[in-house]
Parts: sequence; C-alpha cells; structure tokens
Amino acid sequence: MTDTQLTLLQIDNYGPWTVTPEPRSEMDLQVLQSRIFGDVADFVGSRDGYAFVTRFDNVVAVTNGINRAAHERLQTSVRNRYPVTASVGVGRDATPAIALDEATAELQAAGSAQDGDRREVLGFAADHSSPSPEDVRVAHFDVDDATGEYTDRLNAYDSFVAIERSLVSLMAYLRERHGGLAFFVGGDNIIATMPDITPEEYHAALDHVATETDVSLKVGVGTGPTPADAGMDAKHALERCRHHETAVEVGHERPDPAVDD
Amino acid sequence: MTDTQLTLLQIDNYGPWTVTPEPRSEMDLQVLQSRIFGDVADFVGSRDGYAFVTRFDNVVAVTNGINRAAHERLQTSVRNRYPVTASVGVGRDATPAIALDEATAELQAAGSAQDGDRREVLGFAADHSSPSPEDVRVAHFDVDDATGEYTDRLNAYDSFVAIERSLVSLMAYLRERHGGLAFFVGGDNIIATMPDITPEEYHAALDHVATETDVSLKVGVGTGPTPADAGMDAKHALERCRHHETAVEVGHERPDPAVDD
Amino acid sequence: MTDTQLTLLQIDNYGPWTVTPEPRSEMDLQVLQSRIFGDVADFVGSRDGYAFVTRFDNVVAVTNGINRAAHERLQTSVRNRYPVTASVGVGRDATPAIALDEATAELQAAGSAQDGDRREVLGFAADHSSPSPEDVRVAHFDVDDATGEYTDRLNAYDSFVAIERSLVSLMAYLRERHGGLAFFVGGDNIIATMPDITPEEYHAALDHVATETDVSLKVGVGTGPTPADAGMDAKHALERCRHHETAVEVGHERPDPAVDD
Amino acid sequence: MTDTQLTLLQIDNYGPWTVTPEPRSEMDLQVLQSRIFGDVADFVGSRDGYAFVTRFDNVVAVTNGINRAAHERLQTSVRNRYPVTASVGVGRDATPAIALDEATAELQAAGSAQDGDRREVLGFAADHSSPSPEDVRVAHFDVDDATGEYTDRLNAYDSFVAIERSLVSLMAYLRERHGGLAFFVGGDNIIATMPDITPEEYHAALDHVATETDVSLKVGVGTGPTPADAGMDAKHALERCRHHETAVEVGHERPDPAVDD
Repeated sequence: MTDTQLTLLQIDNYGPWTVTPEPRSEMDLQVLQSRIFGDVADFVGSRDGYAFVTRFDNVVAVTNGINRAAHERLQTSVRNRYPVTASVGVGRDATPAIALDEATAELQAAGSAQDGDRREVLGFAADHSSPSPEDVRVAHFDVDDATGEYTDRLNAYDSFVAIERSLVSLMAYLRERHGGLAFFVGGDNIIATMPDITPEEYHAALDHVATETDVSLKVGVGTGPTPADAGMDAKHALERCRHHETAVEVGHERPDPAVDD
Repeated sequence: MTDTQLTLLQIDNYGPWTVTPEPRSEMDLQVLQSRIFGDVADFVGSRDGYAFVTRFDNVVAVTNGINRAAHERLQTSVRNRYPVTASVGVGRDATPAIALDEATAELQAAGSAQDGDRREVLGFAADHSSPSPEDVRVAHFDVDDATGEYTDRLNAYDSFVAIERSLVSLMAYLRERHGGLAFFVGGDNIIATMPDITPEEYHAALDHVATETDVSLKVGVGTGPTPADAGMDAKHALERCRHHETAVEVGHERPDPAVDD
Repeated sequence: MTDTQLTLLQIDNYGPWTVTPEPRSEMDLQVLQSRIFGDVADFVGSRDGYAFVTRFDNVVAVTNGINRAAHERLQTSVRNRYPVTASVGVGRDATPAIALDEATAELQAAGSAQDGDRREVLGFAADHSSPSPEDVRVAHFDVDDATGEYTDRLNAYDSFVAIERSLVSLMAYLRERHGGLAFFVGGDNIIATMPDITPEEYHAALDHVATETDVSLKVGVGTGPTPADAGMDAKHALERCRHHETAVEVGHERPDPAVDD
Repeated sequence: MTDTQLTLLQIDNYGPWTVTPEPRSEMDLQVLQSRIFGDVADFVGSRDGYAFVTRFDNVVAVTNGINRAAHERLQTSVRNRYPVTASVGVGRDATPAIALDEATAELQAAGSAQDGDRREVLGFAADHSSPSPEDVRVAHFDVDDATGEYTDRLNAYDSFVAIERSLVSLMAYLRERHGGLAFFVGGDNIIATMPDITPEEYHAALDHVATETDVSLKVGVGTGPTPADAGMDAKHALERCRHHETAVEVGHERPDPAVDD
C-alpha cells in the first residue's frame, strides 16, 4: 500500500512582496520563481524526490525518504540565496491528497500565507513510518502523438490549450475520485502522485479525459520506495505504451504479473 | 492600434532527447527546463520583453523592440550553456494569435519539432514596422481575494485546481473571441498579450470565466511601446482594482480618459 | 587610442551579512557568489561587455557601450533576485587602472563598503565620449602547453599554483608598468583589459613572468569598439599563436600591418 | 588524526571545446563555468562537503561522507544539464595533498584531460574508512582589517592584487610544508583543507606570508567529521580572532583545552 510523504513549500508573504514598495518587474519575478523552483527540484531530486512547479509560489513535492533536517536545510538555503523566505509543511498518508491536507494544515495553523509575521514555519508530521518498496506510486501521462497531432499542426498556443484542458480535466478527476494529485511537467507530460488504484481505474480516467476534452492520453504507472524509483518505473512503462500502442502499462515492480508487460 | 511581435522558442528534438538512450531523471529535466526558461525570461526581460513558461519545451515571448541579431545571440547562448539547442520563429501582427501563427509557421516550414535534423532554425518575419507607443497591450489578471478564498482555506492543490480551471476558461475565451494569448505566471496571476479590445469586452471575459468556473477574476490593462511598459502599466491598473474594488481598470497611457482611473 | 569604460560592482555590506546573525553556510555563500557573478557576466556579456570574477564580492567589468540606464537595471535585478544589494561605480579613461580608480572613488565617496547605510549607490562618470573602433584592447593569455606541462603531469593543485603564480606576477607587472588589469578566467587563461602598448612590451611582460615564476605564457591581443569584439579578436590571435608557435600575436583590426599575422 | 576525502572534478576536453568550431563567447563560457561550479558547490554543500572554485574547469572538493553513488549522480546531473561532461576522481589520506594526488592519478590513468575519448571517468579509491569526529580540519583565513586597509583605501584592483599575493604565498607554503591545500573563496577569505598541525605552525605560516607579501592574515581552525562541521567550527574560531584581536584561534572541538578559546 502506498504511504506518500508530501511537502508543501510556500514562499512567505510573496504576493505583497511583489508589489512593495511598487510592482516589481514581472520578468525579474519570473526569473526568481523559476530559480527557486529549480533549486527545490534539484534539492529534492538529488534525494530521490519529485517536485512540481505547481503555482511557483507554492511548490508541492513528494519527499519519501527526506527527513526533517533536510527540509530545514532547504529552508535555510532559500533564506541564504533569495530575497524571500519559505515555510514548509510535510504530511504523510496512503492518499496523496490527504497527505497534502496535513501539510497545508500545518502552515495554515501558523497563520495566513500573507501574514507578514509568519516566516519560515516548519511543520513536519511525517516521521512515523519506515520505508517500504511500495510506498510511492507515480503515474506518468502524455498526449498520444502530441507532436503529430498538435505541435506540428496547430500553432504552439492551440496545442498548449489542448494540453492544459486535458490537464485540468485529469487533475479534477484524479483528485475527486482517488485523492491523486496531477501536475503539468512540461511538453505534453503530466505526472501524478497516486494511491493504489487498478489499471481499469486508469483506463476510466483516460476515458473521462477523452470524453470531456477530446484529448487522448496514455499512462505508465510505476511503484517504488522513492519517487525517483517509482517515476523511473513509470517512464519505462510509458515507453512500453509507445512501443505496444497501449494506453495503460504498469511497471515491473508491481506484484501482479497479470497486468505487467 | 497594437502591433505585437511574438517569439516562439522551441527546444530542438526535446522529447526524443529526454528518453535517449534511456529516460533521463525527471528532476534533472525539471532543473534544465526551469533554467532555460529563466535564461529566456532574463534575456527577453532585460530588453523590455515578456516571456511565458508555456510548455517549457516551447516558450512564447512578446518581443517588441528585440531585433534579429538579439534572437541569434539568445540562440547561441542556449547552445553554449545547455545540452540542447533551440529554434526560434518570430512573427508580428495586430492580433497576437496571428503573430504566433506566423512564428509557428516558420518553424513548421523547416521541419517537425522532433526531426533530428532540424536544429537552430531562425525565422524572423518581423522587421517591417517602426515602434509606436501603443504597440503592445498587456492584461494582468488575478483571482479576487485568492489568499482568503483559496490559499488559506483550501489545501494548496485545490486552490491550484480552481486557478487552473479559470486559466483554461480564460485562455480559450480570449483566444477564440479576440485572438489574445493568456499565460499562467505563478500564484493566482494570469497575463495576456492582447489586441485592442474595450473595457466592456474585458468585463464580458470575466463574466464568462465566472459563469464557467465560478472563479472571480479582476484585470488591469496596460499599453506601451514595449511589453515591460505595457505590463507595468497593467500592474498599476490592477493595483487600482484592489484599492477601488473594481473588476477592470485601464492604464493611464490609454487615450480614452473616460475609462481611466 | 583606447577609451576603456570600467564598472565596479560591489555587494553592499557583504562581509557583515555573511556572519549575521551567525556565520552562514560557506557553500550557500559560494552558490550565492557564483550566481551573482553569473548574472553579471550574462547581463554584461549579452551587451558586448566583459565581466571578471575578481573577488566575487567585487566584480570588475569592461562596459563600453553599456549606459547608465542599463547599469540601473542590473542593480534592480540584483535587488529583486538576491538577499543582498549592490553598489555600482563606473569610470572611463584611456588607461584601465585610472578608469577603475574613478569607479572606485565614486563608491568610496558614498561611504565604506561595510557601512550598513550605504546601499545601491550608482556613480556613473562615463557618458562623455562617443564610441570608436579602437576603444577597447583585450589581451588573452594562456600557459604554453598547460595540459601537457601541468594538468596531466602535476596533480591538479600544483598546476593550479603554477598558474596562480604567473597570474599574480602578470597582474602586478601590467598594473604597475602599463595601468592594465589582468584577471584569471579559468583553466590556464588570463584576460587583461589594456591600454595601447606595443608587441615588444607584451614580449617584455611575458619575459618578466617567465623569469619571476618559470611559467611560459603566450598572448593574443585584440582591438575593437566593445570588449566582445576586442576579446574575440584576441582569441583568434591566440589561436594563431598556437598554430604558429609564436608568443605574441596581434589581431587583424590593429592598424599597423607590420605586426599582424 | 585527519582522514580527508578529496574529489577532483574535471570537465572533459574543455579547452578544445571552448574553441570548436571557433572560439566561443567568453561571457557564455564564464556563465557556464560559474553555473557548473555553483551546481557542484550546491550538491557537495548540501551533503556537508566543501567545494572550491579552483580553476573552474577543475573543481576540488572535500567530500568526507559523500559516497560513490552520490558522485555518479553528480556526474549524471552535469551531463543532463550542460553541453559538457565531467570526470571525477576521489582519493583519501591524512594529508590532503596526497589524497588529491590519488584522485588526480585515477583521472590521469584514464587518459589526458584533452583526450577527446576520455569521458565521464569515475575513479573512487576512498571507501575504506569509517567516519570519525576528527576526520576533517579546515582553516579559514582572512586579511586583517581588509576593508579599512584595502577595500576603502586602494582601488578595488590593488586590494585584490594584495589578497592574491598573500593567497599564492600561503598556497605554496601550506602545500610544501604541510601538504595542506588553500583556496580563495571570495572577498578576503582563504579556506584550506589541512592535516593536523599545531597552532604554532599556523603562526609560522602567517609570519611567512607577512614577511613575503606584507599582508597580515589571521586564521580560525576547526575540526569535525565533515567539512561543513569543521568549516563552521573554523568560522566561529575566526570570529573569536576578530573579537579578541588574536591571530590564531582553534575551534572548541579540538581536544587540547590549552589552546582553545
């Protein structure tokens, strides 16, 4: 069974900072945001976690295996490199959405995201369990023949709108139906941190998106003790979808041989 | 009247590169993508342009005032710093979507985005006009009381889904109705490059989004010879929305005094 | 005749900041310093200037063609991206060392580098002249057969000590004899911003270094309206040194054909 | 007794790459070099190591506690983010210079640094020992009253030359006398990885530098199981030098109470 540790990193008082004493250059903000995300992705990634852009001022990461001390170090690094600080909440549950609820609750308990006094909160409610090889499930989606169907035919924007539409449809469906959390990761790729659901349920998700948005997705599903392991397993499964022209493939670490490649 | 110069920067053969010889670490890809975007935002931004994350492997930028030589320099910098190269198309039109069609057409004429032989194309169909003070219109949207309504009440993900929903609704509406292009820029902020439309038409766009997604947006609209000028004008207009609790404010550089603050 | 514009960028109150409230992580400082330098090199370089690491908390740049407004923009970018701010002084003279004296004087007039109240000074005493094709002279030195003599034979550190020795000898000689400023730029490369001196004087400098440190250097000298032009001319001249096994080569833009390749 | 693990990271075939097919923009190279160093410093630093700029194309790091798998990961990250690759050698010895000899030997055994075929070597001869609290000794030097004596009085360059002179003098002395390795880390700061030497020997080193270069240094010496621990101990010791106006202070973790603060 999955046991997902989720981290929410929130830049303290960011909205007010962007307009104080007057609105700051938008491109300076874009550079700042992309660098903070890049640093979080690097830090988390080099410890086998996965971080997602999310809103830029809020970054969500799957952090199984990354302890409280490492989170403090990340927080200190942000303070030492940037003109802003960050608060961090960490939660843990079989269901990613519940783990994120926990992480969010810890930050909200300490005050509003725009409370000038709330700085560098660290709430860590996740130390309780020992790692196991099925803690993390990652689903890696992409759009069927995105380059042929969209990138080379539509202008860049219209293909992007189609992908975004499918993203929102999938985000809402996985969140409401299964408590999974999906994120856009660039190109035509969407990655979700998921609880343990069946291949049939993945097919149902793809059908839902196709019906609602007319965009056809496929998905590789991976399992592992860390997001990096589960994510690489998912990537290989997605490669099998490409070779076999299948819509759902489940990674080799999954115990049920009947559904494997 | 607007005369928008749009740049499409596309990483050459990126999808295949990410899985050759085998899938690369997702977090390394995230770091790479965020840095390439940061560099483009820095380069374009320090020349008064605006760049948008878009799909990460495709970056769209408004580049009025940035000439062909500067685009070549940007292309060379990507080659000198990253393991990938980039192709660049530039178009120009009163309507942003048509300018992007032009930019896209130049790249597509040179081959598929996943054609291993297509590298470092530079198509620049935009030199023809002299700058004028109303060339660029920028609309800067945000969610009404996003912190109170969403960030502090919902978990981080659910507030993000609500913002994404409103984004997709707005993207499709502005694209289809007006040929404007909207992009998520972080937090609860959406920025669009727009043709010349009336405040009433902005109200109609907000109404459409509110009806379709139940998310209430407001917008500041700015005008200028460059994206930076127009964008800063829009930010000040948006600040006036906040102070006056209005939904649409139009910047001081707009000629019609009746709609100004 | 040369007319060198030099910029001194100094991080405000940096020393005290690094130990307040207690000493900060040295590696966080190294990351911060390398990023600030990278941003300055990018900003200056994309405008045809040359920036040198120098002390990291003080960066020296040759900035012919980069005006006051661009320097202000650079200063604003530092404030918007980093936890520190920067002061900037700009001077101009035929002799680089005198131009740097001017730049330094403007900062020192505004207070000590560790005065907590001195922030974001901008002193620009350089607008007075129009560009000409011989404004900037760049000399690009490297160590003869550094890879064979040092990198592959000595351990990495001992070859580095040899290069550093030659650097200090060259720095002092060029500074005292000619008012030129030399900087280490990585590997076995040293780049100097120079006044107009003869090839014989370059030979004398190489002889001085060889006598004092037993390290044999060669040099390509370039001229141009900007540091990028002069520097590229110097690089090509240095390539000719390699092919012809000569010690001093002077670029093609130099008027005297007798000394050219 | 110290037991220092040293890593040498060398960019493969870098010199030829910088001039192929023709010399690349120097500022693009500076940006690339500073970023690669920043990434190494971040990676090593977030695992309690210390990395030093060194020659930029060769980075030396103290890496006690960082295993072979982490070094492979660092190597992969370079390949996935940059247009160049890196080879890595790791050695271990009580004396840092001997550890670096080992690390260098492993790379040289695999071919020349400019051999186009030598790519991504990883030589790791360092797994053999278990960590102990005195494995790493760090000496953190700075210039006495650098701001008053140099930064505010001399121009930026002349103060830099004075610091560089003292650096080279110290580098050679510590290397030859004790097998220690000193590196410039910015401002007026020099950090050395050292074997176990006495406070009197540090006084002798300072005397040597003062005699040879007329620059007065002071030093804080720290000890710990990792470079970060030893380095922070050294920083606190250096702060005591400042408060007590002493030249040599040894950190609290050192066993001999007689020499402590």
